Amino acid sequence: MKDFLLLTPGPTKVPDRVLAKCALPMIHHRTKEFQAILERINGNLPKAFATKHPVLTFASSGTGAMDSSITNLFSKGQVILSFSAGKWGERYRDIARSYGLDVKSFEKKYGEAFTAAEVEAGLKANPNAKGVLMTLCETSTAVVHPIESIAKVTRGSNAILMIDAISGLGCDVLKMDEWGVDVVVSGSQKGFMLPPGLAFVALGERAQARMAASDLPKFYFHFAETLKMMKKNDTPFTPAVSLMRGLDEALSMMLEEGVEAGWKRHARIADHVRKTMKSLGLEIFAKAPSNAVTAVNMPNGFPSKDLINFVRDTHHVVLADGQGELQGKIIRFSHMGATACDEDAKRGLDSVADAIKKLGVLNPV
Amino acid sequence: MKDFLLLTPGPTKVPDRVLAKCALPMIHHRTKEFQAILERINGNLPKAFATKHPVLTFASSGTGAMDSSITNLFSKGQVILSFSAGKWGERYRDIARSYGLDVKSFEKKYGEAFTAAEVEAGLKANPNAKGVLMTLCETSTAVVHPIESIAKVTRGSNAILMIDAISGLGCDVLKMDEWGVDVVVSGSQKGFMLPPGLAFVALGERAQARMAASDLPKFYFHFAETLKMMKKNDTPFTPAVSLMRGLDEALSMMLEEGVEAGWKRHARIADHVRKTMKSLGLEIFAKAPSNAVTAVNMPNGFPSKDLINFVRDTHHVVLADGQGELQGKIIRFSHMGATACDEDAKRGLDSVADAIKKLGVLNPV
Repeated sequence: MKDFLLLTPGPTKVPDRVLAKCALPMIHHRTKEFQAILERINGNLPKAFATKHPVLTFASSGTGAMDSSITNLFSKGQVILSFSAGKWGERYRDIARSYGLDVKSFEKKYGEAFTAAEVEAGLKANPNAKGVLMTLCETSTAVVHPIESIAKVTRGSNAILMIDAISGLGCDVLKMDEWGVDVVVSGSQKGFMLPPGLAFVALGERAQARMAASDLPKFYFHFAETLKMMKKNDTPFTPAVSLMRGLDEALSMMLEEGVEAGWKRHARIADHVRKTMKSLGLEIFAKAPSNAVTAVNMPNGFPSKDLINFVRDTHHVVLADGQGELQGKIIRFSHMGATACDEDAKRGLDSVADAIKKLGVLNPV
Repeated sequence: MKDFLLLTPGPTKVPDRVLAKCALPMIHHRTKEFQAILERINGNLPKAFATKHPVLTFASSGTGAMDSSITNLFSKGQVILSFSAGKWGERYRDIARSYGLDVKSFEKKYGEAFTAAEVEAGLKANPNAKGVLMTLCETSTAVVHPIESIAKVTRGSNAILMIDAISGLGCDVLKMDEWGVDVVVSGSQKGFMLPPGLAFVALGERAQARMAASDLPKFYFHFAETLKMMKKNDTPFTPAVSLMRGLDEALSMMLEEGVEAGWKRHARIADHVRKTMKSLGLEIFAKAPSNAVTAVNMPNGFPSKDLINFVRDTHHVVLADGQGELQGKIIRFSHMGATACDEDAKRGLDSVADAIKKLGVLNPV
């Protein structure tokens, strides 16, 4: 029996090299051995974010890191601009709201992307805005936002640019320092090829300068304390030791390939998936498609669940349904991290082709 | 070469059965397969807490769960009584302070334990207190607090009893429902025999009734949202899938033995360790010793680091130094979870005996 191939947009397949490190006998975290691991992680992790600035690691889901980026960098009542066109943009907005920020919400239809001009207009209308919330890859719609041009707008403003790159990092190009992005949040279970349970926050200089003034209470997610311990290759609280060892290995793999080469691989596989989907008669849902995941419309109201169940049961390929208002209307096919390879893309695409034929997905209703 | 034996009071040794589950190929968390795992966890986890009430699981360190117990159950300015005689009691107090609670801090010397009478006096002096913060096993001193008698005092009061049982759970007896404890916090890397990265909060009825009134902001650690999802065997955010599979297996092991039998095993091993330490000429540091970990004084100012380094380098046994003001003055030898067995206790004790002989630990200065 063939193993299941996980093509969901997170968690994604974890390479054997990484799984093996996660399964090593436990070590204590306040030892030279673990300090050496932390030192490598603190040195290598920023490379994946294309930054020279520190990247903080937390034992949490990605949402924990999003949460921390609000509580550590803002104060109650401050104005923040949220740009959302999908479930994850909404998540970031809701977090900011739950901490009492004055959130100006800019919303677009699912499947669309914001432009730099729209962000610029938002900032003009709200000159007191302290931050801009944006997603790199909006996983719910498979849209990628034009972060490079948006950063050109924000970096001249008083607002720091906060990017949720949980699913995009390592897949869609993101040059944090070169573009002038202030905060990048990510998680372990997507491009990083790890099990879920670690979350990351890269902090540029403008963001670090905001920490001291933030009046929102925090304890577990505390940037200043975490940065202080990082300087000693230590952590304020017990780290998720086994996942950290996996991260150490996953970063080795990413750097063996090279971050730029990894972006190119994702671009090539994503392009192939989109072209093949179109040649199969399916329409790409995203107006600006991400290289992390591809969403295709189900034609004539064909229920996406039927296709998803068929490929799972017949081909052991696991795809994802739409989220929120898109549930039942699209399928999402990921090519993130270790699954961004010809073999997995082919197996996934063959299973979709078979479903189209066997289920009559394209038949007129 | 013999493997290292980890006798630090967390992380502790992870059994092979559990490591193997943590290293399984990744699965998606919104599938029937993972729902079945969550259903088993939600059913079995409360048994370890001796409660019929729900136990929430978070992807975080134990401190995250302590943090969540404050932000979800209290409001700014509310009076809370903190009883601390060690680093972990202080941690809970500091968390409550950082969220703006009016913390009345009761402190004792490291090594001592609080009595029910002291808690009663604290409550009498502060009739408006909404909570009592207490540790089961104070890992920094190896002291266990008399929770049963303390709960008799708190359950008739307006204060909910919040127990940090991160290191004690599964090792020291704690009968949450029978004793009338309101909140019990724990973590994965001690008695649960897992890698660090999961944290737990057991919520009794009186605690659940406090959730709605709490005005502290929270998002990632949100009890009401988590409880809502638990009812559907789901989680609000991506769970730490590999660690959750490990938890499922660790719970199976704990229930195969039986929770009561596990407590008895810890009591027997702890008693043996204490007696042997005394017969070796060492003095037990804790006035009320825990069954999770044993702390012994270093005589005549002998530096604990020298003994710790010797047993690590010569016997591959990893012990822990004191924390805070006890650093250099005690050694801590844990018997938690999988290491609470005759074989590991013998190997650890033999290494200490050898250190005493070879290093002249008992020699008069």
